[in-house]
Amino acid sequence: MNFDEEIDRVGTHSAKWDKMEGIYGVSPEDGLAMWVADMDFRPPEVVQAAVQRMADHGVYGYFGNEGPYLDAIEWWMRERHGWDVPRDGVFTTHGLVNGTGLCLDAFTEPGDGVVLFTPVYHAFARVIRAAGRTVVECPLVQDEAGIYRMDFDAYDAAMTGSERMVILCSPHNPGGRVWSAEELRAVADFAVRHDLVLVSDEIHHDLVMPGESHTPMPLAAPDIADRLVMLTATTKTFNIAGAHIGNVTIADPELRRRFAARMGAMGMSPNSFGMHMATAAYSPEGAAWVDELTGYLDGNRRLFDEAVNTIPGVRSMPMQATYLAWVDFSGTGMEPREFTRRVEKDAKIAVNHGDTFGTGGGAFLRFNVATPRARVAEAGARLQRAFGDLQ
Amino acid sequence: MNFDEEIDRVGTHSAKWDKMEGIYGVSPEDGLAMWVADMDFRPPEVVQAAVQRMADHGVYGYFGNEGPYLDAIEWWMRERHGWDVPRDGVFTTHGLVNGTGLCLDAFTEPGDGVVLFTPVYHAFARVIRAAGRTVVECPLVQDEAGIYRMDFDAYDAAMTGSERMVILCSPHNPGGRVWSAEELRAVADFAVRHDLVLVSDEIHHDLVMPGESHTPMPLAAPDIADRLVMLTATTKTFNIAGAHIGNVTIADPELRRRFAARMGAMGMSPNSFGMHMATAAYSPEGAAWVDELTGYLDGNRRLFDEAVNTIPGVRSMPMQATYLAWVDFSGTGMEPREFTRRVEKDAKIAVNHGDTFGTGGGAFLRFNVATPRARVAEAGARLQRAFGDLQ
Repeated sequence: MNFDEEIDRVGTHSAKWDKMEGIYGVSPEDGLAMWVADMDFRPPEVVQAAVQRMADHGVYGYFGNEGPYLDAIEWWMRERHGWDVPRDGVFTTHGLVNGTGLCLDAFTEPGDGVVLFTPVYHAFARVIRAAGRTVVECPLVQDEAGIYRMDFDAYDAAMTGSERMVILCSPHNPGGRVWSAEELRAVADFAVRHDLVLVSDEIHHDLVMPGESHTPMPLAAPDIADRLVMLTATTKTFNIAGAHIGNVTIADPELRRRFAARMGAMGMSPNSFGMHMATAAYSPEGAAWVDELTGYLDGNRRLFDEAVNTIPGVRSMPMQATYLAWVDFSGTGMEPREFTRRVEKDAKIAVNHGDTFGTGGGAFLRFNVATPRARVAEAGARLQRAFGDLQ
Repeated sequence: MNFDEEIDRVGTHSAKWDKMEGIYGVSPEDGLAMWVADMDFRPPEVVQAAVQRMADHGVYGYFGNEGPYLDAIEWWMRERHGWDVPRDGVFTTHGLVNGTGLCLDAFTEPGDGVVLFTPVYHAFARVIRAAGRTVVECPLVQDEAGIYRMDFDAYDAAMTGSERMVILCSPHNPGGRVWSAEELRAVADFAVRHDLVLVSDEIHHDLVMPGESHTPMPLAAPDIADRLVMLTATTKTFNIAGAHIGNVTIADPELRRRFAARMGAMGMSPNSFGMHMATAAYSPEGAAWVDELTGYLDGNRRLFDEAVNTIPGVRSMPMQATYLAWVDFSGTGMEPREFTRRVEKDAKIAVNHGDTFGTGGGAFLRFNVATPRARVAEAGARLQRAFGDLQ
């Protein structure tokens, strides 16, 4: 796989490249798109072949026969994560933001509190609020190494009794943390103490840097199956977000029944492109590609971090997983408006603004490094120039 | 376009062909799949080309830039249906069963009554019940020509005041009716009299037989925009149901606000395959293909009707639209179990059972004739043999 190939995505209805100018004023002509969390790479050949087979056959009717798809999910989770998926508890949603919305509908009532460890993936708060539930923020704290830690004493003290759910992002977006088994155990205990449904969004579980190891929540806390909902997907791992397909997996019969009821009421059934692509992706060929990919992403994040960390007052959080660099500009003494202006107007890089990730994010910008390495190098050089007066 | 080409769909995860044996005991080896409402044809070349362009580019990230897609919808509805779509009120759902579910969530409460003119598309009742709402059946009646008519005196008398919505299928599945402008006006008046939101599912609006003319509800009753929700899609017209994409279009600001809130809470955004395919389909090339298609379907339904109507006691409802033959077996004097057995076991044809469409459907079977003509001829011959003792 040649991850160095620069594929022109402009004019392909790519959110990342084609909406950049309208939102940020950064032209795709000379700008770098480092915001939306998809990659500028093609998926593995086995996925490409699945799409090509569909195109060659050319009849795109209703999808039937989920067997091989479920086989592929079972195989992947056992082989790559040591997790025995409860096959009858695997639901296919229209992506995981939709999966989260269905969980909110199924397991909470309007007004209920939903706990987030912030800063965290912005779509969580968006759907929680859209559903008329209340976001309850539990801020993460940075330890001496600069990585995020949880502070359960503070979180316990903040609970009011109206909380019904906690959504964990594991590995963590935007902080890039791979939570340890002990940390996951602590999250599970927190959910038990406050009687919360625990939704564990593990969409980044395959994108773990070499040397790091992700633990699925069912392995970290096998005793909380009665309150656990797992979110996983091929879309992030294999860069097929456009297929809008994801899995909500529930072992507990009562939670499963409630979720299935909402799926039925919403008339949800998966699109055939996503089904064929996911079945192809969760395979030995897909696994080999992911191993290559994470090696490449590791190189990118090292290159990026080396460049930005030379800028006085700027620090990139050590990335243990994902391809999202979470960069703290607070040491520059600049207001967010000023460092953001320099990144967007001077360096011409479109990034995600930290405040959209909730409390604690305001001094950060999120940079997506899943792009050919030459672009990452260019981004680093541009940022050094844009903040050159600080040297 | 060569609609006569027999494309083998067995083993392609086609619900229609690959689930037939498990559900009906009809083997795809020697059986005919005439149930699931998709077609055994490829979509127009312009749609195939859109999929091929996606495959060739090969990066399947998040979709952005809806402009050309909305342009295509506007063009199609104006050009083909004389309907000026309110562009800001076009929502893209995960197909129209999902669109119906979202309408139920947005516009009704648990326990509310939802009116259906039965027999009608079975998924309506399924999602209504799954959502904890109540199905209120208003049975259609057959006139002397054997086609369905509405009886509003009876419907008015049956209303209890707990009804909040009426779902109309226009043109009608399974009866194949193209409702006249007068009939549509009467449905609109019924909705006004009982203060109902009117959901007009016009997914079959392009599949109208030569000589028939469909009227969109906004043209039949322009004064009920404050209670009207339109459902339309490329998926039925162009045989791309696997893409799971559809449109819910709402002119009224308050209804639009409520629907948008549910879309947001459900984290709905469209898949890129559906977006690219729909944009390609709603085009002059797509229109030319549809004109060819409806001519071909008209030939199929004539052939089918001629064959089955020779069987004493069997009568196919005159099909004004759709590709779904609605065949009444009551004149045979047989119980549904017996005529269904003959169709499935003797003729080896998988069909939809009439009772699943609600009250009034029990004596019927639904046959999908959107398949190469040779298969339609074969089906007719098999049915004549299976009921040969009646001659």
